[in-house]
Amino acid sequence: MPRFALKVDYHGAPFAGWQRQADQPSVQGAIEAALARLEPGPHTIAAAGRTDAGVHARGQVAHADLARDWDPFRLSEALNYHLKPQPVAITACARVEDDWHARFSATWRQYLFRIVSRRAPLVHDAGLAWQVKQPLDAGAVQAGARHLLGRHDFTTFRAALCQAKSPVKTLDRLDVEEIAGPDQTEIRLHVRARSFLHNQVRSFAGTLERVGSGAWTPDDVKAALDARDRTRCGPVAPPQGLYLVGVGYPSDPFDRSTT
Amino acid sequence: MPRFALKVDYHGAPFAGWQRQADQPSVQGAIEAALARLEPGPHTIAAAGRTDAGVHARGQVAHADLARDWDPFRLSEALNYHLKPQPVAITACARVEDDWHARFSATWRQYLFRIVSRRAPLVHDAGLAWQVKQPLDAGAVQAGARHLLGRHDFTTFRAALCQAKSPVKTLDRLDVEEIAGPDQTEIRLHVRARSFLHNQVRSFAGTLERVGSGAWTPDDVKAALDARDRTRCGPVAPPQGLYLVGVGYPSDPFDRSTT
Repeated sequence: MPRFALKVDYHGAPFAGWQRQADQPSVQGAIEAALARLEPGPHTIAAAGRTDAGVHARGQVAHADLARDWDPFRLSEALNYHLKPQPVAITACARVEDDWHARFSATWRQYLFRIVSRRAPLVHDAGLAWQVKQPLDAGAVQAGARHLLGRHDFTTFRAALCQAKSPVKTLDRLDVEEIAGPDQTEIRLHVRARSFLHNQVRSFAGTLERVGSGAWTPDDVKAALDARDRTRCGPVAPPQGLYLVGVGYPSDPFDRSTT
Repeated sequence: MPRFALKVDYHGAPFAGWQRQADQPSVQGAIEAALARLEPGPHTIAAAGRTDAGVHARGQVAHADLARDWDPFRLSEALNYHLKPQPVAITACARVEDDWHARFSATWRQYLFRIVSRRAPLVHDAGLAWQVKQPLDAGAVQAGARHLLGRHDFTTFRAALCQAKSPVKTLDRLDVEEIAGPDQTEIRLHVRARSFLHNQVRSFAGTLERVGSGAWTPDDVKAALDARDRTRCGPVAPPQGLYLVGVGYPSDPFDRSTT
């Protein structure tokens, strides 16, 4: 059966997360149902990152095995037709080798976390960012973030239900971007690693928000990390600020110049 | 009665436009109803730009006359409380002189028009941009836009129901910004003038999209402008791509450093 890689955008709000569930809407379930409109199922697809309830994606990657040797462009158009009106869209599609795996072939994942500091309710960004009302000091957030870069035991920033074998991960990138406007300040965390622990980015975001607001010092982040103690983590930030924005592979399956 | 300037964000979708209407929701009506929760009405507020149905604002400016000498911050917080859950937010509030007028004191208006070219349906930007499926050439859009800059008779780009006395306006800025991604291209038009004709920016956007897609040459924009003939305009672009993003005054009423 030919295997296809799918690049997927979705709005997290209506879904109980990526993973298929018996009694709740999921992104995986939505795409598998659309596939079943094209070829009799059941279909089981795999994704690079199994995002939690409410988490967004721009560039999630999944793969599907189909009976027909579809033209990739026509496959993506047919899936988008059947996915409507759900907020899930296939933005790219490519034929891949039979042993290529969206999850196991991936060499890095990149996430974005958006924190918007403003008093007035969000309007256009409602549901698309975490709003806080207190002012945030981006320089302090940057100073706190530096302690998290590199290879560490991230037990402090790991959800209790995390199934990873080891709490040791290597954070390749944690950039703090500030977008200052007259009536609000947005802080964007750009985070990249080979793989992540469960709730790791939201645990970073909630902790770094404490630093930005002045409740924690930047060095408190290092102390919390070094403690390897879940109870020393800041609050876990809510899902609507989090986006899976990219997945890396040894060779980009969607690079049109090579297909 | 003390006069207050209000800076306002809103999502255009649920509203029949800025202007109060007897039988349809409007942004003006929503804010006046919130004011009536604070002080007995009727209230009549005036805005810098009376946006059409479905058009967004980030930084619309209005003014209201109230009986009480409100603390501006408390007034904005109280209005936001009563505006919920409607997608309207007061992002700044200031006490102004009694003869200051949101519309007549304004010296320029700035609009943003977002055109997103991509095949897959919009997800996070649904309702927040005009989606087209064909590729757009930003260089061609830029070349077409240059013909519109400066002082012209804009009859071609004026809605039939426009009430302006003269079709002659001076366009101070029409910048074309391209945001290229792997799976989509966004073109943002940044447009500034002292004042605009009805549907002028949406007429520009629809015409320039024709240039970007290759259906028109950049010089066709000049020919259409010179014809001073409404029938020579491209299609009027839909409202969800349009944002009123700024209003200028001789002295910024919201500049906290001067109040």
